[in-house]
Amino acid sequence: MIPNRQMVLEAGNRVAPFVHRTPVLTSRLLNELAGAEVYFKCENLQKMGAFKMRGAINAILQLSEAQKKAGVVTHSSGNFGQALALAAKNLGVNAFIVMPSSAPAVKIEAVKAYGGLVIITEPTLEARERSAVSIVAEKGAVFLHPSNDLNVIVGQGTAALELFQDQPGLEYIMGPVGGGGLIAGTALAAHYLGNNCKVVGGEPKEADDAYRAFKSGKIEYNKSVDTIADGLKTNLGDINFPIIMELVSEIIRVEEEEIISAMKLIWERMKLVIEPSSAVPFAALLKEGKKFKNKKVGIILSGGNVELTNLPF
Amino acid sequence: MIPNRQMVLEAGNRVAPFVHRTPVLTSRLLNELAGAEVYFKCENLQKMGAFKMRGAINAILQLSEAQKKAGVVTHSSGNFGQALALAAKNLGVNAFIVMPSSAPAVKIEAVKAYGGLVIITEPTLEARERSAVSIVAEKGAVFLHPSNDLNVIVGQGTAALELFQDQPGLEYIMGPVGGGGLIAGTALAAHYLGNNCKVVGGEPKEADDAYRAFKSGKIEYNKSVDTIADGLKTNLGDINFPIIMELVSEIIRVEEEEIISAMKLIWERMKLVIEPSSAVPFAALLKEGKKFKNKKVGIILSGGNVELTNLPF
Repeated sequence: MIPNRQMVLEAGNRVAPFVHRTPVLTSRLLNELAGAEVYFKCENLQKMGAFKMRGAINAILQLSEAQKKAGVVTHSSGNFGQALALAAKNLGVNAFIVMPSSAPAVKIEAVKAYGGLVIITEPTLEARERSAVSIVAEKGAVFLHPSNDLNVIVGQGTAALELFQDQPGLEYIMGPVGGGGLIAGTALAAHYLGNNCKVVGGEPKEADDAYRAFKSGKIEYNKSVDTIADGLKTNLGDINFPIIMELVSEIIRVEEEEIISAMKLIWERMKLVIEPSSAVPFAALLKEGKKFKNKKVGIILSGGNVELTNLPF
Repeated sequence: MIPNRQMVLEAGNRVAPFVHRTPVLTSRLLNELAGAEVYFKCENLQKMGAFKMRGAINAILQLSEAQKKAGVVTHSSGNFGQALALAAKNLGVNAFIVMPSSAPAVKIEAVKAYGGLVIITEPTLEARERSAVSIVAEKGAVFLHPSNDLNVIVGQGTAALELFQDQPGLEYIMGPVGGGGLIAGTALAAHYLGNNCKVVGGEPKEADDAYRAFKSGKIEYNKSVDTIADGLKTNLGDINFPIIMELVSEIIRVEEEEIISAMKLIWERMKLVIEPSSAVPFAALLKEGKKFKNKKVGIILSGGNVELTNLPF
């Protein structure tokens, strides 16, 4: 099911009071380097440091009052756990965040600081899912998937929606591909608000399930995920995959050193703290420069949650 | 001589086509920490990574056609050299930048990359001044001081001018104090555009000439300048000092560890790359929290030109 235009526009209005309207920044130097006119939508400057706040807010706001009273639950060791905790707090809703015991203490503390009710499980997907299911059963809480949920997907697309409002003439829009929520939402925004704007995903070669799925026509899985882009290790889901197949033009894979080099350029030249995952689309643009030659390209800088004491440069 | 309201407003219009209108960002977490409502004017996102672009543009645009033809000259090993080079390039003017042989190669290369004509001298102030004087004599170029020039000062104030346009209700505005150009320009903007807005400077204790000058009523000098805030080592000048004496309320001194801690908070929480000098006013706010309790405070984040491989955290 492809959400309609109305759903996309309504999500924009729905999340607006609860998120920052993040700036769109440009750099002449990076334009020269890329040979293109690049507009960076700075979701690293979003509340809690990532676009994930948008999907979390949109999904919670779609719940009934009874559902809101019961709370929401997700399993995530990454940004979505923090996003759901903060979004829920802002809306006066309880958020149960299932996290693996292997999650860094700083991430667990961050979720707690945002008011999330943390449940620690064994570090296996099975244990996490079992724990989430039992919270749904016991508390009546609503399970929200970080990327494979229609309201989350449409919510994530509001970053691109704002970018098209600011820059209607984009010829390409690019985003990273992890679980598929952001790129699917971005593609929906491009479909309804872009002017023949092509959607291109960037993906680490070390976790290229989406690239392979795009070729094979079915969801693929990663055997190993040896990438610095820790937000992009997950695979696509059955709700976002059809949207991606329908509305995304291409997925470009990049090497680890290309990610690090693009990340460093954005830190140095744009003075923005971004996490490695955020650098992947710009790395893809630089890699396939010819394709984007003299084009107007929008890039979603997805987030900025990175350990300052553990930088790859 | 205190520039009048008209000069300040005209500078805003004059520089606008040549600079980024930088975003004003907020962070709920930093507000909670500071106990105040803080609006960060992000001049680290300005062209060439610092507010200095504004003063350079404003000063060059005030020259006659004959002067523009002859070019401009300054001596600077820091941001102003880069700013003048880039501003001059954008306006089709030659810029002679006198730099000490001790300047880091990366800074010399940056000036050259912006089209600056670099002249290397012995690393003494006397040698730099002699070199600048001889370029003025030989080429007829106009000397522009990085901070002690009325057009530069008024130009630097356009960052605050934009901030007051965006946030008219500020009760305090804060900036770092180095050579005095930024804080003097900020004070002028506050005087003409603020609504009884107090101006507070932040200064490293290790280079507290302005704090002492403010007390003694005459320009003071630093014997040593052992501070990480390398943009704030210079002393005030005879043109900006009277403006500062007249229009600045207070100068707050901060320790080195306070600067580093404030810098880290802004990197981590706001996802902004700022240089140590930029963190000084926020460090001052945190230090004297009571004074700013529940106040609306604007802070000029002056720049983001920092070596990523040499961070203090």
